Amino acid sequence: MINVTQSFLPPIEQYVKILEKSWNKKWITNRGELILELEEKLKHFLGINFITITTNGTLPLQIAIKALNLSGEIITTPFSYIASSSVISWENCTPVYVDIDPEYLTIDESKIEEQISSKTTAILATHVFGNPCNVIEIEKIAKKHNIKVIYDAAHCFGVKYNGESIFNFGDISTCSFHATKIFHTGEGGCIITKDKELHEKSFYLHNFGHNGSEDFYGIGINAKTSELQAALGLAVFNHLDAIFYGRKKIVETYDRWLDSTRIKNLKIRENTEWNYHYYPVIFDSEETLLHIKQILNKEDIFPRRYFYPSLNTIKYLNGKKMPISESISKRILCLPLYAELQTETAEKIAKLINKNLL
Amino acid sequence: MINVTQSFLPPIEQYVKILEKSWNKKWITNRGELILELEEKLKHFLGINFITITTNGTLPLQIAIKALNLSGEIITTPFSYIASSSVISWENCTPVYVDIDPEYLTIDESKIEEQISSKTTAILATHVFGNPCNVIEIEKIAKKHNIKVIYDAAHCFGVKYNGESIFNFGDISTCSFHATKIFHTGEGGCIITKDKELHEKSFYLHNFGHNGSEDFYGIGINAKTSELQAALGLAVFNHLDAIFYGRKKIVETYDRWLDSTRIKNLKIRENTEWNYHYYPVIFDSEETLLHIKQILNKEDIFPRRYFYPSLNTIKYLNGKKMPISESISKRILCLPLYAELQTETAEKIAKLINKNLL
Repeated sequence: MINVTQSFLPPIEQYVKILEKSWNKKWITNRGELILELEEKLKHFLGINFITITTNGTLPLQIAIKALNLSGEIITTPFSYIASSSVISWENCTPVYVDIDPEYLTIDESKIEEQISSKTTAILATHVFGNPCNVIEIEKIAKKHNIKVIYDAAHCFGVKYNGESIFNFGDISTCSFHATKIFHTGEGGCIITKDKELHEKSFYLHNFGHNGSEDFYGIGINAKTSELQAALGLAVFNHLDAIFYGRKKIVETYDRWLDSTRIKNLKIRENTEWNYHYYPVIFDSEETLLHIKQILNKEDIFPRRYFYPSLNTIKYLNGKKMPISESISKRILCLPLYAELQTETAEKIAKLINKNLL
Repeated sequence: MINVTQSFLPPIEQYVKILEKSWNKKWITNRGELILELEEKLKHFLGINFITITTNGTLPLQIAIKALNLSGEIITTPFSYIASSSVISWENCTPVYVDIDPEYLTIDESKIEEQISSKTTAILATHVFGNPCNVIEIEKIAKKHNIKVIYDAAHCFGVKYNGESIFNFGDISTCSFHATKIFHTGEGGCIITKDKELHEKSFYLHNFGHNGSEDFYGIGINAKTSELQAALGLAVFNHLDAIFYGRKKIVETYDRWLDSTRIKNLKIRENTEWNYHYYPVIFDSEETLLHIKQILNKEDIFPRRYFYPSLNTIKYLNGKKMPISESISKRILCLPLYAELQTETAEKIAKLINKNLL
């Protein structure tokens, strides 16, 4: 079976060798030595100032909303995984949708200002499939209106924009280290910010507000990562070159074989060093997508409708119509892409798609 | 160094053997086979109907508040770990404190009704150190006033009351599987309810509201557990008899050697099958406690002031005075207690305490 993605797992012995350090000390969570080591390595690798690794990629979004004291309305994108909208609602704010750019698939910055009201406190935008939002324009808008910016950068491990880590844009960026991601800790994620004060606030929010064992800075919950997760992260970290290289080869194979006259690709923003995180293809209609999906499924190949549905259409999120996002959500399919996928398989998938387009 | 607790860890080979099943399938989270196996084992072992294992013990409290649609005021105990109050505040409700019983250390059920207002939607009480609240009386009060009951049962793994799992009382119980707990998954926890509908609601709340990959029941966040955590749980599970037995021996040693004429113990509620989770001692004054703590620290022994401080005194929680909880919090010390502690060490600790009482 070929899935849309497959977790990269090093030989288990490599994981165990790293984990043994904590195991022998009987110290399995609460900021053990492995998580500290991993944070240092990631800071250096990514070129960022501050990071707090968390137990998944959704808690950082919740923490970001609390760290920035957001309330009222948050402007956001309908073209994203559910987490970026569900956290807004969970944290008692209202998502206000702005449609996406039909080429880059990120929030359309030219439509943001018309949605800003006296209740707007922030923009929470998603860098889609590792493709950056127009961070420069968004920063200008946020400054002009004195609102905050959070980037859901779940797909952005290793992405650079204008030569700098994409995580360095916005007030806070969050990333996912879920098992399906390029770099992962099984379940996991992180909060990144350039601002020391925001880092400290996020850090205490992720650990019950603790200031030592008997005092508290303020409110907090539990977003701590265990050493089990940290050990997996350290083991995966050692293979990053091979992971990026393996993905690049698959992307190039799809690029070579897919019929680009009839299938639309994601347009990567100029001056971006991309990370080959997903390979979305956009068909002319939902009918074609469903047909292609069925053809591939018969061959035991499982691409993913992603992102689908457009978040504004989910009942409890109560969004207005978003024509571009709704149209693209119905026509976009992410093809299998992972480091260990054979290029022959990617070629076969591409040819199957070409042959069966309606 | 002797800490208040030490994580029980089986030989790492046992953990690896279990984890290999998921590793070889490259399936490390998203409800893999190990988490399903662990949930089945725990249901049987604990005598409960429904369980959802989560990535820590705090998220279940947040999910419980959302699952029961709580708002307004929640009556709670000041004598608990911070999580039981911080989640109330995080979830946009107001904690209203009720003082504790000076013997059982659980919320004083006789003082609950006077705090119920038109805004009260629930009671969130903590079974303290595995010692059950007066669940029978609390149920009567809740029924009379048509409010919900959540038990923070973080310390209650294996506790029975009137012959039944303590997890079966209240609308929802939550437990912690943190590394310091009797049974653990490194970081972890669970939601337990007898009610099928509440179970289903909690389940989807813990996984983004997913109803399959493309549909949503409603709001949700990420509280999923990885297979790394599940594997550790399964490995620890196989040693439960030894863990309970080892703890019992230490409790009996303290009971035998500590000067019970001068040191007060926790009073276990009648008809409780206790789990030996903590060994709290209550001194006559904070001065004595600080003196004893210093004496023990000098011997490289680190008991824990737990629970301290009384939660009503934490600034952001904004509670009224709670004389009993405040007094006990200042005078209570949890002594080292874990399965692998030597009885000789416990005896030494007891004698050091007796000798140095002010």
